[in-house]
Amino acid sequence: MSDQVWVFTLGNEVVEGRVVNTNAAFLGRRLSLLGFNVVANVSLRDDVDLISKLLRYALLINPKIIVTTGGLGPTYDDRTLEAVALATGRSLILNNEALRMIKEKYSRAGLPITEDRIKMAKLPSGALPIPNPVGTAPGVWLEHGETIIISLPGVPKELEAMWESWVEPRLRTIAPNKFVVEYSFRVAGVPESSAAPVLKDIMKNYSGIYVKTHPKGHEVRGPLLEVYVMAFGETKDVVGGVLKEVVSKLKMKFEELGGEIID
Amino acid sequence: MSDQVWVFTLGNEVVEGRVVNTNAAFLGRRLSLLGFNVVANVSLRDDVDLISKLLRYALLINPKIIVTTGGLGPTYDDRTLEAVALATGRSLILNNEALRMIKEKYSRAGLPITEDRIKMAKLPSGALPIPNPVGTAPGVWLEHGETIIISLPGVPKELEAMWESWVEPRLRTIAPNKFVVEYSFRVAGVPESSAAPVLKDIMKNYSGIYVKTHPKGHEVRGPLLEVYVMAFGETKDVVGGVLKEVVSKLKMKFEELGGEIID
Repeated sequence: MSDQVWVFTLGNEVVEGRVVNTNAAFLGRRLSLLGFNVVANVSLRDDVDLISKLLRYALLINPKIIVTTGGLGPTYDDRTLEAVALATGRSLILNNEALRMIKEKYSRAGLPITEDRIKMAKLPSGALPIPNPVGTAPGVWLEHGETIIISLPGVPKELEAMWESWVEPRLRTIAPNKFVVEYSFRVAGVPESSAAPVLKDIMKNYSGIYVKTHPKGHEVRGPLLEVYVMAFGETKDVVGGVLKEVVSKLKMKFEELGGEIID
Repeated sequence: MSDQVWVFTLGNEVVEGRVVNTNAAFLGRRLSLLGFNVVANVSLRDDVDLISKLLRYALLINPKIIVTTGGLGPTYDDRTLEAVALATGRSLILNNEALRMIKEKYSRAGLPITEDRIKMAKLPSGALPIPNPVGTAPGVWLEHGETIIISLPGVPKELEAMWESWVEPRLRTIAPNKFVVEYSFRVAGVPESSAAPVLKDIMKNYSGIYVKTHPKGHEVRGPLLEVYVMAFGETKDVVGGVLKEVVSKLKMKFEELGGEIID
């Protein structure tokens, strides 16, 4: 299970649909392109008990990485690190480096250090703070058993800045030695249920390949499929070759079924 | 736990971030406005074993409703109903009503019934098919113990049409007797860490209320908070009164902290 990733996007506003979960898409995309196998994205209410239970469930599977977003701020409902501590059997302790980062930001604006500001510097024991170049709450990097737990803020511009500047460069050094290439095209005139046996056949005869059809039209009245093909493997040349072969085979089969390829 | 809902949005394209999960937002919003307590949205790869395990985990909590999206179509990776059957200890059996719905659509277009089309009519035993006015795969309504499991397609326009025409009218009859009202405003000039004690105080002194701040500016250089207030309870008048009182108290406190209210 060494390249498995579980993502947790936390917050009532996410599960209640008051925001669209763009963080899940950002992280899923970035982690997949690094070659990791993102198996789950779990959004949960700001409930320490619930979050820690699901984190513990994920930890049992020994994923390589768990990323959490949200719940690092100063308010009463920002309790993600409490849940991480609970799930990993650690305590929350004042981290001096995190406190220094926070103090620096507030003192520059002439603001004192209050209890609610100190809260953001209480990290699970053994954790490293991740600098936040945009906001104030530091992120957290915690190596626990075989899993790295990375906690980032929920504000997209903070999350993305920390990902780019700090997290992704470190993950590159431990990412699976895997090349991923992808290609999409459209086919008009072939119902998804007619494409199904073609896909099944490809998946049976190739390894390191993934094909999916996304219906964009109407199955019988005006079928239009978006066909997504992904190839992955250890060398760029092999992966590229397999992709090319599969794509041309798919296009040929769809044309035989009366489809029109739209590139 | 009688008003708990778990949502499962299934598909590799979701966890890998190739699409933004608008279905999660649609369902979270609709279910919350009906008065249900959406506690989790779980996105998973198209992996029967993984999906059935997490469904079983959710079922242990006895939620009122589980909604799944995705994986009902004719292709090899559409295996949600297999996972539902596995998680509930049922078998997949050919449902005559579902088969009739599917046959009708294809025969109208002069298309025969193939194995991949029949697949969409194999439902967990005891399930009712939900008509799909837009696409072809029927949805599923399955009452299992104290939980209703509702499986819908992943294509947003199909999901939304089935929700509007069939699912929501039925859920209204079992929705909690709860009124929900909400209000949002913005405050400039108050860092979130200064707002934190105000929120804590409100949450301690009111029940049936939920307050959250979303930072939209910079914590120290130019703080801008979006303040979301939700009130819920059994009668419209009480709920409206509490909301009004809390909102005016919050605005007053934020002004005392030097904030400027932007309605």
